[in-house]
Amino acid sequence: MVNATLNTIKKRRSITNFLSKSVNEKVLQDVLEAGRWAPSWLNKQPWKFIVVSDESIRLRASDIVPTVFSSTVRVAPVIIAICVNPDLNPYHYIEEGAAVTQNMALAAHSMGLGTIWIGTFSLADEKNSTERKLKDLLKIPKKWRLISLLPLGYPKFKGQKTRKELNEIVDWNYFVAREEKSSAQEIRQKDSIKKILTPTSTPPI
Amino acid sequence: MVNATLNTIKKRRSITNFLSKSVNEKVLQDVLEAGRWAPSWLNKQPWKFIVVSDESIRLRASDIVPTVFSSTVRVAPVIIAICVNPDLNPYHYIEEGAAVTQNMALAAHSMGLGTIWIGTFSLADEKNSTERKLKDLLKIPKKWRLISLLPLGYPKFKGQKTRKELNEIVDWNYFVAREEKSSAQEIRQKDSIKKILTPTSTPPI
Repeated sequence: MVNATLNTIKKRRSITNFLSKSVNEKVLQDVLEAGRWAPSWLNKQPWKFIVVSDESIRLRASDIVPTVFSSTVRVAPVIIAICVNPDLNPYHYIEEGAAVTQNMALAAHSMGLGTIWIGTFSLADEKNSTERKLKDLLKIPKKWRLISLLPLGYPKFKGQKTRKELNEIVDWNYFVAREEKSSAQEIRQKDSIKKILTPTSTPPI
Repeated sequence: MVNATLNTIKKRRSITNFLSKSVNEKVLQDVLEAGRWAPSWLNKQPWKFIVVSDESIRLRASDIVPTVFSSTVRVAPVIIAICVNPDLNPYHYIEEGAAVTQNMALAAHSMGLGTIWIGTFSLADEKNSTERKLKDLLKIPKKWRLISLLPLGYPKFKGQKTRKELNEIVDWNYFVAREEKSSAQEIRQKDSIKKILTPTSTPPI
């Protein structure tokens, strides 16, 4: 039995094409609301959300984003740009903008909408990066950073991608390099993964 | 009316103290599962999750994390360390590790557990950073990065923090610097915010 939140998390997929159906304000507000409740260091909330509904801006944005995202940005009825101010938290502003983005993506999915996370943040902050160009377009001040664009709309198709299995990505107590494992480690590792993958009522932890 | 996912997102708070109740494997598996379904660039899934249940490791970690988190790490029945490999996605590995962390925090809350996001990632990758020390402790290879620690357990107290209002953090189409707003911008801005905050059945977007 999986609760509704776990189900949302497991079923959300990136959506690259949208119906021409518009997004009403109540739904939009719920998505923004979800971003608002993301966690941040000392609850600084170093973020701002720009709701892009103007078609001419959206079309200009579609020419700036990597080609693979252009058509999605062109057809999305609305796009949310998630910005953060590093002055408010110089150490973790990237993670915090990301937590906002993920909250919004999950909220959208829970209401039958689709999103795709366009990672616009340029780690090296290069001139002429997608981030810089989008910041110019959206009049985002120099010191602010643009973490992501989140096109939002009703999905035209279902996303299908799957994921690595848990036993490929979970270790127990220590990182175990897959390629360097000794047989002893491998046995310990297998035993641990079995522990994780075999539901039981005995609390081992 | 708010659906269960929106409710989870709005009600999750950081939890700094836990009951001595242990976390069973089924619940732990559901939390890890939630991390597994995070989005990533080209579905690269550049992550690995270390489940730290060993008490001696946890106590050593409690001496390494910033003092404000020490007691939480000491009493948490289990801690998940979220690691990412920048080789698999040099541009957005931080955001992707963050999306994993947020998925897990929400999954935990949906099942009655609490977490607190300990941001361990050191943006400048300083020697002697908390991240480097924790990487040594958990035997995480040099090239991997440790995005966060997520202590997990049953909350001893409820979190109480609130957030800025939407009208403080949402702009319409363009970033509007609050302190630099002209009266014309202010009027346009207010109007836009009103649009967001007044639910209506008319789809404006």
